[in-house]
Amino acid sequence: MITGPIKNLIREFRKLPGVGEKTAMRLAMHVLGAPRQNAKALADALIEVKEKIRPCSACFSMTEGDICEICASPRRNRALICVVEDQAGLMSVENSGTFFGLYHVLWGRLSPIDGIGPEDIKVGELVKRVAAGGVEEVILATNPSVDGEATALYIKKALSPQGVRVTRIARGIPVGGDLEYADALTLGRALEGRSPY
Amino acid sequence: MITGPIKNLIREFRKLPGVGEKTAMRLAMHVLGAPRQNAKALADALIEVKEKIRPCSACFSMTEGDICEICASPRRNRALICVVEDQAGLMSVENSGTFFGLYHVLWGRLSPIDGIGPEDIKVGELVKRVAAGGVEEVILATNPSVDGEATALYIKKALSPQGVRVTRIARGIPVGGDLEYADALTLGRALEGRSPY
Repeated sequence: MITGPIKNLIREFRKLPGVGEKTAMRLAMHVLGAPRQNAKALADALIEVKEKIRPCSACFSMTEGDICEICASPRRNRALICVVEDQAGLMSVENSGTFFGLYHVLWGRLSPIDGIGPEDIKVGELVKRVAAGGVEEVILATNPSVDGEATALYIKKALSPQGVRVTRIARGIPVGGDLEYADALTLGRALEGRSPY
Repeated sequence: MITGPIKNLIREFRKLPGVGEKTAMRLAMHVLGAPRQNAKALADALIEVKEKIRPCSACFSMTEGDICEICASPRRNRALICVVEDQAGLMSVENSGTFFGLYHVLWGRLSPIDGIGPEDIKVGELVKRVAAGGVEEVILATNPSVDGEATALYIKKALSPQGVRVTRIARGIPVGGDLEYADALTLGRALEGRSPY
């Protein structure tokens, strides 16, 4: 019933994050019924993004030119670098409206299980960037997951010979959250990271 | 920050069913970080599906040839036609493994709010198909939504001059469901559709 091209499309949809077998099937069924120009427009947008968008030569965030808007901005604090795992992390920090330094996108996190080592992510580039001087603080904003923590620890060690200040974003109870529903690890971190009041 | 091609990709992702602003952004961010060949493979799969897959000339389900596998099968009961809204509906009925007749895919449902009338879906084709003879029963398996019910009613009226038996799939409590959590409409339908026991 599900012939070659449809099976193929389902398989490609499944590679997207958060898309399982059922969702992939649903998306493929939608494409079958949708106008041809819609499928064409999505296909073109995918190709165009990969053709026109490249990593910024300074921070590796994705941009149309050689240098991204943030790195090019004269209003950014160049002494402050926020290290994120990917573009989504960068967007989240940027959307919080509370950070005015520069970024460094690692494009991944250390994960021995998946065979991802330091040479697979932009750690060496970060060390070089800090070595070039002018950086006072590196904020590690990798995810508070096992891999994210391991990555943060690795970067801290890699930067230690340079004497730059290295900080880690706070882990604790989300604003509006409830202690009752917080897991023990988070609550532990919230206590550990308490501040004078 | 989000430049032309990325904005474009987000907009195209948003057109997929169940994809809102946040998911579209997440998918686009994933594409930015994924290998170029993955984006290319998805784009190619989208184009290929629209190029190779066409509606079956008998039942309008999507297929690679002129006639779909089901319509071409000699083991199917040709006197029984199950009417569904789209390919997903057909797949659901087919996957239940309880139907051995033919299908008719409407490719939509009547929806005055969206300006979708009978001429926009394959109703006329169904009437013609039944008029050609050999059909004993038409099972209306449009969704039990407002639009799906309106569509079923419209088809019933359109087929009435032909004297063919028209039935509607049962609406009731899902198997494994719980009366306590059933809404009043569903429970009402379940009572209305009760059968001798």
